[in-house]
Amino acid sequence: MRQLRVDLPGRAYDILMERGCLESAGARVREVCPRARRLFVVTDTNVQPLYLGRLRESLERAGFQVTAAVIPAGEASKCPRQLASLWEEMMACGLTRTDAVVALGGGVVGDLAGFAAATILRGVDFVQIPTTLLAQVDSSVGGKVAVDLNHGKNLAGAFWQPRLVLMDPDTLDTLPDATFADGMAEVIKYGCIFDKTFFAFLAARPSRGAVMEEIEHVLYTCCDLKRQVVVEDERDRGRRMLLNFGHTIGHAYEKAGNYQTWTHGQAVAAGMCAAAKLGVAMGVTPPDAPEQIEAAVTALGLPGDIPCSLRDYAEAICLDKKSAGDQVSVILLEEIGRAVPHKMPQAQLIERLKPFCREA
Amino acid sequence: MRQLRVDLPGRAYDILMERGCLESAGARVREVCPRARRLFVVTDTNVQPLYLGRLRESLERAGFQVTAAVIPAGEASKCPRQLASLWEEMMACGLTRTDAVVALGGGVVGDLAGFAAATILRGVDFVQIPTTLLAQVDSSVGGKVAVDLNHGKNLAGAFWQPRLVLMDPDTLDTLPDATFADGMAEVIKYGCIFDKTFFAFLAARPSRGAVMEEIEHVLYTCCDLKRQVVVEDERDRGRRMLLNFGHTIGHAYEKAGNYQTWTHGQAVAAGMCAAAKLGVAMGVTPPDAPEQIEAAVTALGLPGDIPCSLRDYAEAICLDKKSAGDQVSVILLEEIGRAVPHKMPQAQLIERLKPFCREA
Repeated sequence: MRQLRVDLPGRAYDILMERGCLESAGARVREVCPRARRLFVVTDTNVQPLYLGRLRESLERAGFQVTAAVIPAGEASKCPRQLASLWEEMMACGLTRTDAVVALGGGVVGDLAGFAAATILRGVDFVQIPTTLLAQVDSSVGGKVAVDLNHGKNLAGAFWQPRLVLMDPDTLDTLPDATFADGMAEVIKYGCIFDKTFFAFLAARPSRGAVMEEIEHVLYTCCDLKRQVVVEDERDRGRRMLLNFGHTIGHAYEKAGNYQTWTHGQAVAAGMCAAAKLGVAMGVTPPDAPEQIEAAVTALGLPGDIPCSLRDYAEAICLDKKSAGDQVSVILLEEIGRAVPHKMPQAQLIERLKPFCREA
Repeated sequence: MRQLRVDLPGRAYDILMERGCLESAGARVREVCPRARRLFVVTDTNVQPLYLGRLRESLERAGFQVTAAVIPAGEASKCPRQLASLWEEMMACGLTRTDAVVALGGGVVGDLAGFAAATILRGVDFVQIPTTLLAQVDSSVGGKVAVDLNHGKNLAGAFWQPRLVLMDPDTLDTLPDATFADGMAEVIKYGCIFDKTFFAFLAARPSRGAVMEEIEHVLYTCCDLKRQVVVEDERDRGRRMLLNFGHTIGHAYEKAGNYQTWTHGQAVAAGMCAAAKLGVAMGVTPPDAPEQIEAAVTALGLPGDIPCSLRDYAEAICLDKKSAGDQVSVILLEEIGRAVPHKMPQAQLIERLKPFCREA
């Protein structure tokens, strides 16, 4: 078992990584929620047939009453309507302030269940059991929870730290290749922004099989990097924004495809390549970086670029949560392994993205 | 001008009380939100024709771009659907993280706008401009924001402290008598739980006119008492629950009347009388207290008791947010001016409420 402690003042919590740990989830949750009687488990239609039974059994063995809510798989569930529906279900089963919410699934389940946990009865305990690579290396750590609005992704939400994050690498075996690759986009991102050595490690393992042979190291490294950033900057006002590398531009791709053509990971992969090229054009990033990043992402079946109009770029930039007034911070690489925020007027960034426009 | 500072670590804020301060709101808001360009003002159909114009003018004079959302007056607006609609409107007008939300109105407006402010873009600055007595002495101070669910009131929400609370006593002049009396229920509550002298002061002023002659003192005393409790116990785990005096039972009355027959203040008034009688029956409260409280509330046109079935009591108790497992804390008076929480099994409290059941 590998273990990391996220040391936030007053709300420290552990991230546990262990093959087969779904079976011992009950005992682990009992340790962090000693007074809870009821657990409200949120999962989705993909994950429910695979893992809910085993989790429920383990939780019930630990003496919890378990109520499960199964949401339709897919980003469309991460919406205000579904949030309100979870709120009502939580009250219907008699949840109290000393009970807890458990998210079993990917990022959509974690973000939605976490926001519901943050707000029901003004906040109850929350446990993350991420079952996708993306959720394990990214969304389950750090306490950002949210729903999407018509105007864009993650626009309404909260900061709500889990009491525990439990990740079972075995759950990755049931992921489709495309979903695994999605997670790899964020894995590669960690190398790009924080860790040259880790980037080289990944570049030398250009396939799912090769990555899975070292999956514990990959999960541990990513979570450890994210942990450090979160501890330094829980509320996302400074260093944490470096994690946004590839995301501002990536949001434009997601929006261009109406959140259907391109997954978040595909959009981030292409967004990182574009941000690297933008960095070269601005004289910040070394000329060979874009090629290296493109090789790393395309090896895993992720796109190195995505067609997008200037209007899509402009809309994504103006909606970026990191915007302050008409200024936007875009994350650039000084080299692979070191990222810096670059603040500029929104209009200037839009202008600079003109060379990256391409019709579908 | 009277002024109170709520000294929460890292998020201290002022409560300003001044006749006519709507006119100077722009300058005040500018002081606490120096970087904001846009303000999203939430108000309701009652308050909009009375005060929105003056507020907007003052805010615009201070250089803010103002977008106003006018919700239908009444508790029914404090719902998830209206929250989601505000979220979308906030994004539609281009709100960014350095902008702010302003609530102009009573408790419904403040709670709903505050919850929207707490969650849009994971939280933006928030200013309260309460225009009802209830909101001025209670809901605008302390940072509790929420929406109602089908299962009960205030069940989904957050703790989100305002940057500033501005109250203009002149706005009370336009309140209907019943709405003024609603606020007085909470005013009398402060006397009951914290301050014998203040209770006597109120008992000697048994009319709206008499209270309004001393309104600054009343507002200041109530906000100061609430401030002390909030600073000691922001997250509502200990002493703050004393503010719940009359509320657990009051919620049963609100529910019994389907949230239409009885206002919150009427329910709290009758709830305090019932809680005082319950305290006498349990040997905690002096025998003459119920009569004194009943005299104080009925003088202002508030009910001393409300018909309610045992089932309504039971439902309200089981849904009480202060419940932990099957235990509930009911607030009792050791004397007028001193409240104590009394923890007991839910079933026992329900049993003890049997003498208070009465058919409508």
